Amino acid sequence: MFFPWLRRKIQQNNTILCVGLDPPLDLSEDLSAFGHKLLDASADLACCCKPNIAFYEARGERGWRALRETIAHAHAADLPVILDCKRGDVGSTAEAYAAAAYGELDADAVTLSPYLGIDGIRPFLRPGKGIFVLCRTSNPSSEDLQTLETGGEPLYAAVARRALAWLADREAGLVVGAMSAGPVSEIRRLAPAAWFLMPGLGAQGGDLEAIRAGVTADGLGVIAPVSRAISSDPDPRARCRALRDELNHARRGPGAHRSGV
Amino acid sequence: MFFPWLRRKIQQNNTILCVGLDPPLDLSEDLSAFGHKLLDASADLACCCKPNIAFYEARGERGWRALRETIAHAHAADLPVILDCKRGDVGSTAEAYAAAAYGELDADAVTLSPYLGIDGIRPFLRPGKGIFVLCRTSNPSSEDLQTLETGGEPLYAAVARRALAWLADREAGLVVGAMSAGPVSEIRRLAPAAWFLMPGLGAQGGDLEAIRAGVTADGLGVIAPVSRAISSDPDPRARCRALRDELNHARRGPGAHRSGV
Repeated sequence: MFFPWLRRKIQQNNTILCVGLDPPLDLSEDLSAFGHKLLDASADLACCCKPNIAFYEARGERGWRALRETIAHAHAADLPVILDCKRGDVGSTAEAYAAAAYGELDADAVTLSPYLGIDGIRPFLRPGKGIFVLCRTSNPSSEDLQTLETGGEPLYAAVARRALAWLADREAGLVVGAMSAGPVSEIRRLAPAAWFLMPGLGAQGGDLEAIRAGVTADGLGVIAPVSRAISSDPDPRARCRALRDELNHARRGPGAHRSGV
Repeated sequence: MFFPWLRRKIQQNNTILCVGLDPPLDLSEDLSAFGHKLLDASADLACCCKPNIAFYEARGERGWRALRETIAHAHAADLPVILDCKRGDVGSTAEAYAAAAYGELDADAVTLSPYLGIDGIRPFLRPGKGIFVLCRTSNPSSEDLQTLETGGEPLYAAVARRALAWLADREAGLVVGAMSAGPVSEIRRLAPAAWFLMPGLGAQGGDLEAIRAGVTADGLGVIAPVSRAISSDPDPRARCRALRDELNHARRGPGAHRSGV
């Protein structure tokens, strides 16, 4: 059960940090060792991990095997796994992608693209699994499409409302970049109970005020993935500890909702 | 050089049929044998092939190896390969996906999602490679987002215009479902010289009139992928021949532009 597990880990480890696993293309060390080292350094400082499948696919079969081993290692450390894959395709193809993510790889949650509509989401709606639909991303060209106005609101707001409808009575997840507080607050108003996966801190220059704008009244509702800023640090454990503390300050500090956690 | 190669194959084999390779999840035969059989049956009746990576990923490392072998088999038969992967992510991740598609797998072209903007496209813009950006898809829920009105036009039209700008002075490809002639004509007006990859014939119930609406004045501009209707036919070669002929009728018949091919 992904979301109850996530909630338990946030409370147990007192953290909303998600350790991102993006092994660089020019990595010199072993691919499995890269993931194991980061997971061992962070298992009690993070609430989940997020391997990015692209960096494993770039290594072919070897990468696929390392990804499976890395996910098993995370599970052995009691960390739920969000497979960052941003899939989105017609129904029969989405079935095959779901078989890959949940069956072959044993991921607990996935990131998905909304462009094809509910057809690309439905096959991933399996009991106990979590889904994060791309809503407002943190990359420089996110405004090429996501901020186009439609029906008096930006496209990303229309996506947020549709994603809630697609996920219906399930816990809903959205990908909401941590770039500025304004759009985050707007999406939080539309989706008061959704979980926000908020990339953008660290290498991408994101903003703790944006994180704060996403946190719900109970101090939850946000998980913050950080990849390169951790993996490139000579002391990944110290960096995780610092990030955990910064994020806890953002979710509980002045101006933030007071947390019961 | 993907597009010149594609144009040469269309003329040499007198066909706009693209053989889709979507090995069913319950396939009993060997995965590589599935692709080799279909490629051998169609190499002189098709202009290219389109393996769908989802159906290979669902088999893990074994699938990845079979996909690589299938692509090599297509190249040995002088068929260009469009990897149907619909990737779309931030720049550094898109670099890794491009390394997988072009480096590990040796694909000649890819399908890409537009939702993150040019950042997700740019890493795939390598010399000689082809790109097809998702524009208007053929699945039932394509209207969840793609027909939202923005700036007086549907979102898919805004995507078509942006994709042309992203691809700038390169040959541009768009994914335009073969579901009805109206939207296809509209996109053709916006993108008079683009290549349309038009799924939807066969199992998805698409329409030859839609194909006709996409064809350019020289009888080109469209490639029509068909997957399950070929692979599930007891005589795939006969089915490919019939599809080739239907498609040639659509691109040259009454009401279509006359072809110089």
